[in-house]
Amino acid sequence: MAGKENTEDIVCNIQKGDKRFASKLMSMVEDGNSEGEECLRILRGIPGQAHVIGVTGWPGVGKSTLISRMAHFFLNMSKHVGIIAVDPTSPLSGGSFLGDRERMRGIDGDERLFIRSMATRGHAGGIAADTNAFVRIMEAMGKDVIIVETVGVGQDQVSVCYVADTVVMTVIPGMGDYLQALKAGIMEVGDIFAVNKADRKGVDEVVTDLRMIIGMSARKNGWNPPIVKTTAVSNAGIDELMIQIENHRNHVTRGGKLLSKRIAAVKLEVVETLKSRLFHLIELEEKLDDYAQQIFEGKIDRFNLVETILKEAEIVKQVRRELHD
Amino acid sequence: MAGKENTEDIVCNIQKGDKRFASKLMSMVEDGNSEGEECLRILRGIPGQAHVIGVTGWPGVGKSTLISRMAHFFLNMSKHVGIIAVDPTSPLSGGSFLGDRERMRGIDGDERLFIRSMATRGHAGGIAADTNAFVRIMEAMGKDVIIVETVGVGQDQVSVCYVADTVVMTVIPGMGDYLQALKAGIMEVGDIFAVNKADRKGVDEVVTDLRMIIGMSARKNGWNPPIVKTTAVSNAGIDELMIQIENHRNHVTRGGKLLSKRIAAVKLEVVETLKSRLFHLIELEEKLDDYAQQIFEGKIDRFNLVETILKEAEIVKQVRRELHD
Repeated sequence: MAGKENTEDIVCNIQKGDKRFASKLMSMVEDGNSEGEECLRILRGIPGQAHVIGVTGWPGVGKSTLISRMAHFFLNMSKHVGIIAVDPTSPLSGGSFLGDRERMRGIDGDERLFIRSMATRGHAGGIAADTNAFVRIMEAMGKDVIIVETVGVGQDQVSVCYVADTVVMTVIPGMGDYLQALKAGIMEVGDIFAVNKADRKGVDEVVTDLRMIIGMSARKNGWNPPIVKTTAVSNAGIDELMIQIENHRNHVTRGGKLLSKRIAAVKLEVVETLKSRLFHLIELEEKLDDYAQQIFEGKIDRFNLVETILKEAEIVKQVRRELHD
Repeated sequence: MAGKENTEDIVCNIQKGDKRFASKLMSMVEDGNSEGEECLRILRGIPGQAHVIGVTGWPGVGKSTLISRMAHFFLNMSKHVGIIAVDPTSPLSGGSFLGDRERMRGIDGDERLFIRSMATRGHAGGIAADTNAFVRIMEAMGKDVIIVETVGVGQDQVSVCYVADTVVMTVIPGMGDYLQALKAGIMEVGDIFAVNKADRKGVDEVVTDLRMIIGMSARKNGWNPPIVKTTAVSNAGIDELMIQIENHRNHVTRGGKLLSKRIAAVKLEVVETLKSRLFHLIELEEKLDDYAQQIFEGKIDRFNLVETILKEAEIVKQVRRELHD
């Protein structure tokens, strides 16, 4: 009963926009707490209408500065803003780029802004799953815009991009070779391309490279990804970027694609949660050494090991208990 | 019975070094074929002594050219060489870098060389798991050296690095910012640092950056990662790189760390195989839309969904069948 009161307390305070309770619930979700899951379930039932913007790109391209500029812009438009930093190297997640953190200073005391960073390891529910959970919690807080910062390279980080309605892929001059090599991956993820640090040499080359990659790719649901030159440090190009972000949101909403995007994000959650819960239920961690030794020595093959594990595991014990009830 | 003959046939021919049978088994493993798993189990029981070298680094740093130089070197020393290209952008995996493929031409007809590329999607057993399986198959073929090429960014690609005994992390001039940002990740993975394209401007800066990062990090089991300047295109620095690779192998073997490295790689296999087999057994793919819809609407929380899935799933049916036997 105390649990139920606690749940109601958390849900109610988060709906009022309370950062402390939101933080608490996020930690509960990260830790795999089942009361946290119940809160999350209730919050999902409450309609929200946040625009979820992913900002992705390799470390060093200036995502955090770009995000602080975007946050400024939205706050000036009287919007409530949430930021989720998934990139482990992000200054937003308490990294070492003090210069960047300085730039946040103007807004980080703003009551309407809520920043939450996320460890990339030890997530009970998986990174993308927990990111989507955090997004839903921030939406329930009444955030109008939720910005998710991610590195966007590698399967787990790319997954995080699917949580967003609009993805801004950030690149810098000199990255042409990398872009060419990652063609397909870039087009899969990016809705808008920001060429940041556009005051540097080589900006036209990278724009040309991007144009070629975009030109060779099929349009994404009738959307032709625009390229915007930005210099986040001096705020140059941010207005144009914000217009394109708004354009994309309208495009997605108009086509009724928002719902299917969100269902796709939940699918990721289901897959990741299943994985981690199953591993928990079969007590994988305790027994992994022994399993690995058996495989290493060729005593059993991997598929038969899985069957054996399932038979031995807690899952089976639970089923047995039920069947005997 | 035909299946058993087939298994013996595959195992026997692979031990003779037959590339066609090795390719066949690798495809079986990728497809999640259980006969393939049985072959793999038998092959694991056969002692091998290959040195597994991972070459990792972002697209564009010249890993493939470096690997072709390394392969040349080993073939000249009368070694049998296997190459596994996990990087989807690798010219070794049939990409578009014809220039690089030209460079392979001198050796790619060599009977002692076997190159196999790996798709990064659709792996029944997970990328790292299948990479380790491929390594074991190549070892059973009698390969003395197995080189694994991977992008090494993102959890799934980093996992592939753990399959190797020695990891050469490849960087190029101009990457200093990225290296700084990825400090911890770089040290976790790299045993040796190759600064490739060392004829380019900025080579000394990147060496200085690396020295600083290495200096600030704890030594890896008493090993101080060396930095080698290479220009793979003109073969410069390759001899020095090969000496360092040999040094690291001796270091690992001397300390008895090879076995624990290999067991760790098998653990990865167990985890990945478990994941994919479990998802198969619970028929996740067919039911995912429905599950996602329930979560999205807040009808059930994620943990309770997992419990429900387990109860409904094939796993349970199997257990029931057994209990009734």
